[in-house]
Amino acid sequence: MALNFPNKKVNFTKNINKANLGMDLETTINETNEYYLVNDIAVIHKKPTPVQIVKVDYPMRSKAVITEAYYKTPSTTDYNGIYKGKYIDFEAKESHNKTSFPLSNIHPHQIEHLDKIIKHGGIGFLIVYFTHTNEYFYAPFEVIKRFWDNKEIDRKSIPYKVFKEECIIIKESYIPRLHYLKVIDDLYFKN
Amino acid sequence: MALNFPNKKVNFTKNINKANLGMDLETTINETNEYYLVNDIAVIHKKPTPVQIVKVDYPMRSKAVITEAYYKTPSTTDYNGIYKGKYIDFEAKESHNKTSFPLSNIHPHQIEHLDKIIKHGGIGFLIVYFTHTNEYFYAPFEVIKRFWDNKEIDRKSIPYKVFKEECIIIKESYIPRLHYLKVIDDLYFKN
Repeated sequence: MALNFPNKKVNFTKNINKANLGMDLETTINETNEYYLVNDIAVIHKKPTPVQIVKVDYPMRSKAVITEAYYKTPSTTDYNGIYKGKYIDFEAKESHNKTSFPLSNIHPHQIEHLDKIIKHGGIGFLIVYFTHTNEYFYAPFEVIKRFWDNKEIDRKSIPYKVFKEECIIIKESYIPRLHYLKVIDDLYFKN
Repeated sequence: MALNFPNKKVNFTKNINKANLGMDLETTINETNEYYLVNDIAVIHKKPTPVQIVKVDYPMRSKAVITEAYYKTPSTTDYNGIYKGKYIDFEAKESHNKTSFPLSNIHPHQIEHLDKIIKHGGIGFLIVYFTHTNEYFYAPFEVIKRFWDNKEIDRKSIPYKVFKEECIIIKESYIPRLHYLKVIDDLYFKN
């Protein structure tokens, strides 16, 4: 016997962001990297979260259980790898702020790290996702660095306007989800 | 009042390896990488140990404590970075065996990973440390791969002899402890 439900359309009020299907930035990038890997385009991985392991139990007949550990401050960026023979290194950050990206989102040693990467001939950048406008920006390290170096005397954030004017939009798509290597093609591999 | 101890020299029987001062391979490589970093020679880091975090406690007024976590199988090698504009990727392994290096020391996806790295134009290799002879070898990926590909029909290890004949000794020194980039210089950057 079929149950009769009231014949009424339900309007979901939950604000589902259709474009990114509610995925967080990390998942979006990981899926993109997986696409690059499977299709032999690039080898780029997220580094594991650094953890200080203090106590480990070895229960009989089962695998080791870490029972006490702490998060450590990362000493590098989250993502690195190789694309067309070039060393690639970046950090991905969300901004929930409408008008700017607070520099407090970045650790000082991540800036130092990216600085060194550029000096050694690698490609270093940030992916900044503005949640309010649902825009992903490829931010060249030079832009970030300019604001970072002045943060004690000037402002402690990068205005949204700067992203619009000096950074490059990464278009979201279905597959791959966030084709950021397209930007690198345009910047580094155009004849 | 001074206590009188028997005037007799004590011979420590513990077998201290003078050359590497009892350091394990990971510490030796980390110290070398630190030397490279500080002296602006290369940027090469060990990736954090991958851990599956299951439970986290947030005690009041103190930092988060991970109370349940498990070791995960790494999907890549342990070390990567950049040297003279080149992407560098390697795994470091000890062999306690006198006559060979058992291939069971390497995970299949580490081989797949290094294979991809080479195809994309990176430098991939293994550092193999034979504890009995206190020798460090730079093993080009091609050598490892040849044995790996035949391990089902041939032997499941690489004979020590092959290291002596086809790999390159990395000399141990005081600073840096294990100058493996010297080998890369000889192999890739010689005119």
